[in-house]
Amino acid sequence: MKRRLLLVSNSTLYGSGFLDHCQQQILGFFGKDVKRVLFVPYALHDRDAYTRKARDKLRPLGYEVDSIHEASDPVAAVRQAEAIFIGGGNTFRLLRTLYQQEVLTEIRRRVLEDGLPYMGSSAGTNVATVSISTTNDMPIVFPPSFAAIGLVPFNINPHYQDPDPSSRHMGETREERIRQYHEEPGTPRVLGLREGSMLLVEGDRATLLGTTGARLFTRGEPAAEFSPGSDLSFLLTDAA
Amino acid sequence: MKRRLLLVSNSTLYGSGFLDHCQQQILGFFGKDVKRVLFVPYALHDRDAYTRKARDKLRPLGYEVDSIHEASDPVAAVRQAEAIFIGGGNTFRLLRTLYQQEVLTEIRRRVLEDGLPYMGSSAGTNVATVSISTTNDMPIVFPPSFAAIGLVPFNINPHYQDPDPSSRHMGETREERIRQYHEEPGTPRVLGLREGSMLLVEGDRATLLGTTGARLFTRGEPAAEFSPGSDLSFLLTDAA
Ligand SMILES: [Ca+2]
Ligand SMILES: [Ca+2]
Repeated sequence: MKRRLLLVSNSTLYGSGFLDHCQQQILGFFGKDVKRVLFVPYALHDRDAYTRKARDKLRPLGYEVDSIHEASDPVAAVRQAEAIFIGGGNTFRLLRTLYQQEVLTEIRRRVLEDGLPYMGSSAGTNVATVSISTTNDMPIVFPPSFAAIGLVPFNINPHYQDPDPSSRHMGETREERIRQYHEEPGTPRVLGLREGSMLLVEGDRATLLGTTGARLFTRGEPAAEFSPGSDLSFLLTDAA
Repeated sequence: MKRRLLLVSNSTLYGSGFLDHCQQQILGFFGKDVKRVLFVPYALHDRDAYTRKARDKLRPLGYEVDSIHEASDPVAAVRQAEAIFIGGGNTFRLLRTLYQQEVLTEIRRRVLEDGLPYMGSSAGTNVATVSISTTNDMPIVFPPSFAAIGLVPFNINPHYQDPDPSSRHMGETREERIRQYHEEPGTPRVLGLREGSMLLVEGDRATLLGTTGARLFTRGEPAAEFSPGSDLSFLLTDAA
């Protein structure tokens, strides 16, 4: 399988600018052959402003940005793309729009069959997985399904947060929310990607990049901790 | 309109037990005429344990608890109830089950036409409003719609949290999430009910109870702050 994915937890890390913390990984991922990146700004309301932001960041790195919302035929834009980057925002809005524009199947086909490099951040990482059922976002619009593009056989929780022992807030912790997900039958694994972490997938190899590590949740098993650099290739093959 | 609602932000306040912080309001709300309360435990996986918890809390206050999940005919149980209490947990699981058990319409009818007293906490408060689009929960299961029971013409965000100026977390603040909801056309007001707050609705009067206040979000307008004791009856009539 040709699949190449860079799945980033968060677009912006505290104290730095948009995509600054993963700039080296972006350069390594897209490399020198990619000249143009197709940007998908559907997760935010102001698509023009979001596209400018992506363009201002990627152009100095050597990549021209075309936005899918400026294309007369979004499916054709996916068909012709050299690389794709789906940005963060609201995951429900993003997934609903991917269905409305009927680009979901074509993105899957191009990534899995043609090896189209796929970069996602936050909501753009959620939609790369089995489903959006482990997003942190509010369900502000109703998509036709929670099923996502399905480029990997597990789910991701971006912006993963450890419990705060000093908190007096009584809403569920992130781990409790994921545990509730796993009370449902047949639910896949969930990789809790902390801010500052990202997952690189190349074919059947998966590697944890970044500085903050990740926590893996499997239905019926204790959670497991993985440090930066870990080989997570088993996530791509195990049924779990 | 006979409608009587007690909509609680959170079942448990930091440092106290289940429903302790709203015990006086529960006694005032159900009063001395109600003898039995129909409990709806659908938001949690272990319905038996949840029912025991509700029973252990409400019995010493003078109310016997019947759980809807123990009834052979859930719709008949709603039809015969003296009062109803929908507990918190996962809002998606709760709403999906209300649809699956086909009790949503009957609950609405009994509350709005018969004056059946309705108490909700957290997820049970979310489902009393226009939609669950302003829940904080993870979308662990897919309901047929986000439309909820619709006992009031606005939405509520339970467990409302003010931004934490010391946080380094880069996920959206609660206010940013609600603002993203209001980017969508035709979205109703959202009352951010802090933990420790609750809303009492009697006919066309709404009063903010508890100790922590609430923040009101209206599409296209600045947010507004309301202190405990505020008269919020305008929420029941204004289109907004
Ligand atoms: Ca988001
Ligand atoms: Ca909840």
